[in-house]
Amino acid sequence: MVVGLVETAVPAAKSTVSSAVKKPTTLSLDPIINVARGDPTIYEQYWKKMGDRCEVVIAGDEFMSYFCNAMNLCWFLLPELDNAIRTLHRVVGNAMVDDDRFIVVGNGSTQLFHALLYALSSPDLPEPINVVAAAPFYSSYPEETKFLRSELYKWAGDANCYDKDEPYIEVVTSPNNPDGSIRGTVVNREGGKAIHDLAYYWPQFAPITSKADHDVMLFTFSKATGHAGTRIGWAIVKDKVIAAKMVKFIEVSSIGVSREAQLRAAKILGVIADNCRNPDLKGENFFEYGRRLMSERWGKLREVGMKSNGVFSLPKYPRDYCKFTGEYTDSNPAFAWLKSKEGLNCENLLRDESKIITRGGPSFGVDSTYTRVSMLSRDVEFELLLERLAAIKGTVNGN
Amino acid sequence: MVVGLVETAVPAAKSTVSSAVKKPTTLSLDPIINVARGDPTIYEQYWKKMGDRCEVVIAGDEFMSYFCNAMNLCWFLLPELDNAIRTLHRVVGNAMVDDDRFIVVGNGSTQLFHALLYALSSPDLPEPINVVAAAPFYSSYPEETKFLRSELYKWAGDANCYDKDEPYIEVVTSPNNPDGSIRGTVVNREGGKAIHDLAYYWPQFAPITSKADHDVMLFTFSKATGHAGTRIGWAIVKDKVIAAKMVKFIEVSSIGVSREAQLRAAKILGVIADNCRNPDLKGENFFEYGRRLMSERWGKLREVGMKSNGVFSLPKYPRDYCKFTGEYTDSNPAFAWLKSKEGLNCENLLRDESKIITRGGPSFGVDSTYTRVSMLSRDVEFELLLERLAAIKGTVNGN
Repeated sequence: MVVGLVETAVPAAKSTVSSAVKKPTTLSLDPIINVARGDPTIYEQYWKKMGDRCEVVIAGDEFMSYFCNAMNLCWFLLPELDNAIRTLHRVVGNAMVDDDRFIVVGNGSTQLFHALLYALSSPDLPEPINVVAAAPFYSSYPEETKFLRSELYKWAGDANCYDKDEPYIEVVTSPNNPDGSIRGTVVNREGGKAIHDLAYYWPQFAPITSKADHDVMLFTFSKATGHAGTRIGWAIVKDKVIAAKMVKFIEVSSIGVSREAQLRAAKILGVIADNCRNPDLKGENFFEYGRRLMSERWGKLREVGMKSNGVFSLPKYPRDYCKFTGEYTDSNPAFAWLKSKEGLNCENLLRDESKIITRGGPSFGVDSTYTRVSMLSRDVEFELLLERLAAIKGTVNGN
Repeated sequence: MVVGLVETAVPAAKSTVSSAVKKPTTLSLDPIINVARGDPTIYEQYWKKMGDRCEVVIAGDEFMSYFCNAMNLCWFLLPELDNAIRTLHRVVGNAMVDDDRFIVVGNGSTQLFHALLYALSSPDLPEPINVVAAAPFYSSYPEETKFLRSELYKWAGDANCYDKDEPYIEVVTSPNNPDGSIRGTVVNREGGKAIHDLAYYWPQFAPITSKADHDVMLFTFSKATGHAGTRIGWAIVKDKVIAAKMVKFIEVSSIGVSREAQLRAAKILGVIADNCRNPDLKGENFFEYGRRLMSERWGKLREVGMKSNGVFSLPKYPRDYCKFTGEYTDSNPAFAWLKSKEGLNCENLLRDESKIITRGGPSFGVDSTYTRVSMLSRDVEFELLLERLAAIKGTVNGN
């Protein structure tokens, strides 16, 4: 197992064209397009335009202490970030952030997912608690749950097939990664626990139909704003004991979260909220900008899909009324969930015929006619992706 | 167990006087001094003096990608930080950093310790690998090893008592936390693995007698420079497979390390190296400054200890030739390892008689006549600590 883990990590990184070391101008000569990972470089131009409104300056003697706010349950959370997170959710209306809910910051929502497995499990149970998610599920959940072989929790697969009469945690991603669907829990058994991963519940990806109001909700800076190099995620938690166990997890794992990253996230979330509230401010509404961009990309991709003679198809999403924009809007998910004709292996087809690297269905718990394609790359890469997809004939069967 | 973990975390944070929320001027009125944690605020004045030489400025559109350098094994390591780490070790002469060794960055050396447990263990072994450290050992090692109940590794206690004929990992901290002693491995059995935690192997704490040259060496920004709010640690690793497994761990745990914190660490380590190499530069040598401060504090503490009528005593350290300073120097550890008279509980004695919160011997695997006191607090707190220690009579037996 372990050698496999190592092998998959390094070549994935090395072959990624969306990295900083390759120049966009060489892309059309590059034999490989890697859209397997959702590297969200799509918004770079927006942030360039914001200029020094988003600049942070940190002096040498700042942030010397382990403690941000020793009076707060989450003692390593910068008060400015706490405030910026609550303000932005109030402005967007995508999650309940009443004052009696706890914000726990993590090194990305990935660390918070681990913290939640720890917080929702119990050493007093005779067996590890079962962790399930409805397929297709985010491909990292099984690995994150399994890799340390904890006796506290274990991966138990597709929630749709879960029939054990045992304690369980259901992970619900909505809008879902990889397929963009809007989801709720499927097991719904008494005593079941749920983690709601709302990484993509922002207006550029989906209509905001109501304020999410779950016991534990995860969000991540990388998907909200595109700052993936800033490892900041946050959980909104109702129960104090759960929040305290998460804080303990992050203390034992990494003694908190870097203040520099928190400060920058606070600044950038603050600028987004300000732009939303003050349309006269220089700089446009980030979510409107993002929605337009995503919508254009989805339009182009659907056009290519229509012309593919059924070699591949895309999911359809219902329009819904978005309370944030005040109009009916489409879903424009961060990933395209491609399905090829029956009998074809979609990941292999794209790789062998077009040198497009994607992540195939089996990683998400479904069959290999599916594959996931990031919609968040830079313009030049996205255009090249469209070009290659348009040329696909499906003659290589990819099996 | 879990409730206990939660309970210890939160009150510890709340009662800490070295936090940012309490003003130093109220300290003498504060009933409690908390020196249980090594919060390294001691160097704040130095960094204030460095002014804008240490300032970092980050624009809104920087660091959008998950990838720093896709060609590097550690793809989330900022090249500037890699360079600054190697340069500083070359200037100080405290560790081998040949170009063929790998630098792996983590969210503090705490995350790297977890990464090493993962990297040095194997799912192919029939039993979890034993993790040992010679007592007194860093109090967090047992908790960090045990808290997720991994089937890959398990805590096996004091290395001095280890007599199993099974695979093991020995953790060696040198200079040691809590007692400042210079250490090597004690088990020394064929096939044994070692983690060398060199967090305190810097000239302000101990003479630099040679370049450390071990398979895996851990360092942390917080102890080197005092920036504990910046969660940056690094490992210097000989073996590529081990380094790759560590990178995999950090990918699965937190998808890398925030770039903002890395950039700032690179800047500050760079200023330290520049100041060491160019004595004419404005600003003095950080390590000389730190050594003078630590040496003064140790002098004052020893004086108080001498006058305590044997209520408590301190370890003695041999002088040694420091290749960095070019003279014989003393050890001035980051923690004072107090021992009370036999029959007394040192932690309880300090707490009950003087309201000084420390961390007692049992947390470090030894008896309760010992307790650990941080030497890294701000001046005003340290002076108050001395005052309180000088007044101790040992009449409360603390049991």
